[in-house]
Amino acid sequence: MSYLKELAATRSFQLDRYPSDLSARISPEKAKKKLKKLRKKIAELQDKMYAHDRYGVLICLQGIDTAGKDSLIREVFKEMNVRGVNVESFKTPSKTELQHDYLWRHEIKLPEKGKFTVFNRTHYENVLVTRVHPELLLHEQIPGIEQVADIPNDFWKMRFEQINAFEKRVTQNGTIVLKFFLNLSKDEQKHRLLRRLDKEDKNWKFSAGDLKERALWARYMDCYQEAIQQTSKRLAPWYIIPADSKPVARYLVAKIIYEVLSARADIKYPEMPDSFDQEKEQYKRQLHSEE
Amino acid sequence: MSYLKELAATRSFQLDRYPSDLSARISPEKAKKKLKKLRKKIAELQDKMYAHDRYGVLICLQGIDTAGKDSLIREVFKEMNVRGVNVESFKTPSKTELQHDYLWRHEIKLPEKGKFTVFNRTHYENVLVTRVHPELLLHEQIPGIEQVADIPNDFWKMRFEQINAFEKRVTQNGTIVLKFFLNLSKDEQKHRLLRRLDKEDKNWKFSAGDLKERALWARYMDCYQEAIQQTSKRLAPWYIIPADSKPVARYLVAKIIYEVLSARADIKYPEMPDSFDQEKEQYKRQLHSEE
Repeated sequence: MSYLKELAATRSFQLDRYPSDLSARISPEKAKKKLKKLRKKIAELQDKMYAHDRYGVLICLQGIDTAGKDSLIREVFKEMNVRGVNVESFKTPSKTELQHDYLWRHEIKLPEKGKFTVFNRTHYENVLVTRVHPELLLHEQIPGIEQVADIPNDFWKMRFEQINAFEKRVTQNGTIVLKFFLNLSKDEQKHRLLRRLDKEDKNWKFSAGDLKERALWARYMDCYQEAIQQTSKRLAPWYIIPADSKPVARYLVAKIIYEVLSARADIKYPEMPDSFDQEKEQYKRQLHSEE
Repeated sequence: MSYLKELAATRSFQLDRYPSDLSARISPEKAKKKLKKLRKKIAELQDKMYAHDRYGVLICLQGIDTAGKDSLIREVFKEMNVRGVNVESFKTPSKTELQHDYLWRHEIKLPEKGKFTVFNRTHYENVLVTRVHPELLLHEQIPGIEQVADIPNDFWKMRFEQINAFEKRVTQNGTIVLKFFLNLSKDEQKHRLLRRLDKEDKNWKFSAGDLKERALWARYMDCYQEAIQQTSKRLAPWYIIPADSKPVARYLVAKIIYEVLSARADIKYPEMPDSFDQEKEQYKRQLHSEE
């Protein structure tokens, strides 16, 4: 069965029709085993892509606190050559970053040819956390927006269009864009937060802010709903990953990456020019004849 | 036995006294097994260092063509969380980079707190390849150096001092600097180049330039000798890694990284303030009492 199709967000996307738990259909144990094989295969594709040097891959990861982004990155990319993977975590923008428009700090971290970049939280935060807390927008010093009341009605629609144009340009120039929303249930988040509080060695990961954001759950989901619906495109699709089971979520992300990349039949090792066969013999003679 | 001490370059460093092959003392098979255990231990230290958020680690890798830098990076850092490792390969400087001094492009790629950065070829190329081919220096637009004859006698000594000052400053501010020279014999390089020519799927890695640089072997070794001797310091030592066996080289690099990091007893998970115990109970009540 193709999860690729099943989990992709369509034009008529409805978040609440996508499951947060798929472990009845695929057991966490089975998912773990499958992931092990898959990540070896992805590493082979990575090597080929590196030698080919035409495509880059941008993996966008979004999800609410505790959705499992960090550990997913650790597990899915484990077999990869670290040379070819960058992980960029986007937190509160710095003063320097705020002196540019909101896409600038993402632009400068886009993957090079032949490489993977993982955005751990992404440019979508600018239509998610910024939309839930519109006062954050004031730091961006956008002309005409001096207070929250100045934000025009069509502001978020405009941002969706800007993001679509940005992603369209990068995909048309050789970056493969894959966007994953880790779809966690509110109940499972509660369990995970309680675990952070219960386990002493996990305490440092807990922040009181997590509970404040949790209180805004419904508002976040509305913003995700619209953002995903407006920006899931054929060339830069969103995949809605059931995230209540971590092993299942990791397996599904790996599976989708593998299927998308292996479908690109043009990715291959560079071929040497015919003339190289002759040159080769000359180089060998040169090495063998050293005193 | 402590390879740490045995392989470190001393003040009276003589490159030709260091072996390129240590496989009689440690078999490649044994080295492979030991590496597997070591990299798990390094990954544990990495996690702790990430949480601690005070130190960064800069791994500098130097070695002649085919010395095994790329595959060493792939194997040694395999168990690490990719989030915390950046690999920076320094090739011919770009025009933008040449508009700055030679250390600038390395400065801007230094590790963040809590993270590892691997320099695959390093700022030392500026006293190695640039010294072997001094015409490269002219691209740097240094005042007063318009032709090779303008390079003053004490120019390289000056660079060693600049590099020492740079490394001293970064180590004093929390970056752990480890420098590895992959010591390959000339004979083993010949075998490896022939293999690249013989195996069709390795052909794309071969460049005619490799043979041109090989012809300058003795000159390169003289430059390595002086560079290492002048810049191996207590806080930023050089380790001379026998590189004729790839598994042995990888094991030794991992072993040294592990020993250096585990000796830093102050690296630990952050402790929560005493007040957190009370707050914790309140957060739990809050989560449990949700409707």
